[in-house]
Amino acid sequence: MSKFQPPRGTRDFLPHDMIRRRAVFEKIRQVFESYGYGEVCTPAFEDFELLAKKSGPDIEEEIYAFKDKGGRKLGLRFDPTVPVCRIVASNPSIAKPIKFYYITNMWRYDRPGAGRWREFWQAGVELIGSAKPEADAEILALVYDSLLAVGIKNFYFKISSRNIIENLIKKAGIPAKKKFDVFRAIDKLDKIGEDGVKKEIKGYEIPAKAINKFLELIKSKKVARDELKELETIRDSAEKMGIDNIKIDCSIVRGIDYYTGFVFETFVRGFENLGSVASGGRYDSLIGIYSGRETPATGFGIGIERLMEILKSEKTSSIAKVFVVSVNEDVKKQVTGIAKKLRQNGINTETEITGRDLRKQLDYTNRRQIPYAVIVGPREIKARKFKLRDMGTGKENSLSMDKIMKKLK
Amino acid sequence: MSKFQPPRGTRDFLPHDMIRRRAVFEKIRQVFESYGYGEVCTPAFEDFELLAKKSGPDIEEEIYAFKDKGGRKLGLRFDPTVPVCRIVASNPSIAKPIKFYYITNMWRYDRPGAGRWREFWQAGVELIGSAKPEADAEILALVYDSLLAVGIKNFYFKISSRNIIENLIKKAGIPAKKKFDVFRAIDKLDKIGEDGVKKEIKGYEIPAKAINKFLELIKSKKVARDELKELETIRDSAEKMGIDNIKIDCSIVRGIDYYTGFVFETFVRGFENLGSVASGGRYDSLIGIYSGRETPATGFGIGIERLMEILKSEKTSSIAKVFVVSVNEDVKKQVTGIAKKLRQNGINTETEITGRDLRKQLDYTNRRQIPYAVIVGPREIKARKFKLRDMGTGKENSLSMDKIMKKLK
Repeated sequence: MSKFQPPRGTRDFLPHDMIRRRAVFEKIRQVFESYGYGEVCTPAFEDFELLAKKSGPDIEEEIYAFKDKGGRKLGLRFDPTVPVCRIVASNPSIAKPIKFYYITNMWRYDRPGAGRWREFWQAGVELIGSAKPEADAEILALVYDSLLAVGIKNFYFKISSRNIIENLIKKAGIPAKKKFDVFRAIDKLDKIGEDGVKKEIKGYEIPAKAINKFLELIKSKKVARDELKELETIRDSAEKMGIDNIKIDCSIVRGIDYYTGFVFETFVRGFENLGSVASGGRYDSLIGIYSGRETPATGFGIGIERLMEILKSEKTSSIAKVFVVSVNEDVKKQVTGIAKKLRQNGINTETEITGRDLRKQLDYTNRRQIPYAVIVGPREIKARKFKLRDMGTGKENSLSMDKIMKKLK
Repeated sequence: MSKFQPPRGTRDFLPHDMIRRRAVFEKIRQVFESYGYGEVCTPAFEDFELLAKKSGPDIEEEIYAFKDKGGRKLGLRFDPTVPVCRIVASNPSIAKPIKFYYITNMWRYDRPGAGRWREFWQAGVELIGSAKPEADAEILALVYDSLLAVGIKNFYFKISSRNIIENLIKKAGIPAKKKFDVFRAIDKLDKIGEDGVKKEIKGYEIPAKAINKFLELIKSKKVARDELKELETIRDSAEKMGIDNIKIDCSIVRGIDYYTGFVFETFVRGFENLGSVASGGRYDSLIGIYSGRETPATGFGIGIERLMEILKSEKTSSIAKVFVVSVNEDVKKQVTGIAKKLRQNGINTETEITGRDLRKQLDYTNRRQIPYAVIVGPREIKARKFKLRDMGTGKENSLSMDKIMKKLK
């Protein structure tokens, strides 16, 4: 390996990666659009103030920040929700509900590790302007259909509400101003265990008694019926849409400060160790912070890195379907014509452009795993029949161009 | 407008923009893949040293640079070619020719102006490992097919070679070490005129006599036959691929240092003032700088901003094709079922998720320019016939769901 590597925590995606990623993107895009969501694309960087305004101290630390030559402090996008809120706040005339989706990269200066990258991708939606449980149910339906579309079947949702946790915090006697610290600690419960959470919360100067009571309340799952009503309504609404894999689980809180009610995570059976593959929830206060107008909103993001990890066993193929081999220099013109016709018929085609001989062209076709070669020489042109070679089996057939076209389609 | 704008020189793309941009991206992608090119995606930022190594002083100034918390100097990608060279240099085992394409954003800290953005998009390819004129001809063919695919017909190529200009520089008596300064000045000939170029070159301490001679040589177009041979071979090779709009024009040099031979620009008739919409050329030394192995390479980038400017008169439509209207709360379940069926049949569908009444649902459908509404009430459910309303004409038809499905498809 050479010294010219991508920066720490980032990767290059080569064609064999991109074929798989692009296929996943397009399947998800189709689901999002099937619900009437429209794509948005915001700049890679934003004013730092805007990003920091509602991200919470943990994330603020992780923003790639820099000054432009005009002295303005900017930061790379760390999350797709904040820029969308900026758009909504500055365009009050867009008809509501606003249905935006994105499939994009973002950046966090995080410690790289298994599945943790400094440049990572998310596909998700923001649904702005409805406070109804139907909106949250639609969010779950979008995730449900997206995961099915990419071929993941065995998954389930854990849903909860910030309101429930806030009540438990109150009941346990934890000061309200410490609630975000507790959210962030509880978010790590699966990863670091109860002792880890206790240790982390201790750092925030909360009485040990209150912490113990709080963890007990979470475990007991004896949450008052009326507190669960909100979640049950969302679950019922989602069940009407055919979604039957929802569990209510009050230990789900999400690590980000801006959530205000419903929150959820999504787990794939056998891959629970990866954590949630799609998460989100309701953030009814975030847009108001920018615009001064309270605007209900809900949404989610699918973590593409985790999704690809689950899907990684799938095989990929080469871009080109066929290589048109030139037996010698004299057949160039005919080869060009054949390649053009193949391309116009939707068949991805390569021809020789480095001046190699017959054997080396076939070597390349093989090495690139291009499944077919068409061999064009003076004899073939005269007979109007060309050898179609199946590179997998090595079998050759002399066929007319029409038959070759049909076979390759 | 609010204070929450995207940073200077950048833009948000909302769904009505993205529909058009996405359609252009996908048409270009199809052309690139039809020639066997595979997509690559590199990180948004790279080690600054790597970027600066061969960009030339003008561009180095324009790189968004920052330090990460580890003290490493990074820079945002300003060009797609340098990262691709890094990949090739560090992966010597990839079978050649390497055919990579990208459709991506990049960033330059440039003065924003008409068609000049600090975040901008390019679609292009890098063809690595062939020094043959057929490779350069394939580059022109890719641009040709891409522009036709997005609906641009009236365009032409201007091709030239760095070798020719270098000879003219020598003949005029300009010192060789000043050649990149002259390239950058000549690149602006169309924009700033002959006097502007003279003024700019004077800043580089080149004798006035040499400058005058040089400009005369460029204008005279009396370039020796054998110097033109390289270009004529490329043109002939491209003509075999059906490309008949190539002009040899020695004033084309391209502003970037790394080109070594063939260079080209592409102009659309009636939009010449925008400058070239697709440009590129041969850079046979760049990969060697990183890898130590001389590797011939050629490529191009299409400027998406200019392309969209040319295409901007086209109309766009809404994402959703139909809104399924609920007459009252009791029909929710049926509405959900109908929407699901429509989506499964590839028809993008919205339903009511904010609890509005019949009239407000129709208002929204109208405002969003969704072309159809299906109206679902208790009577319609009983009769198994639903009103399909054409939102453009206001006409309504009572139809079975099967007929509605057929009509919307």
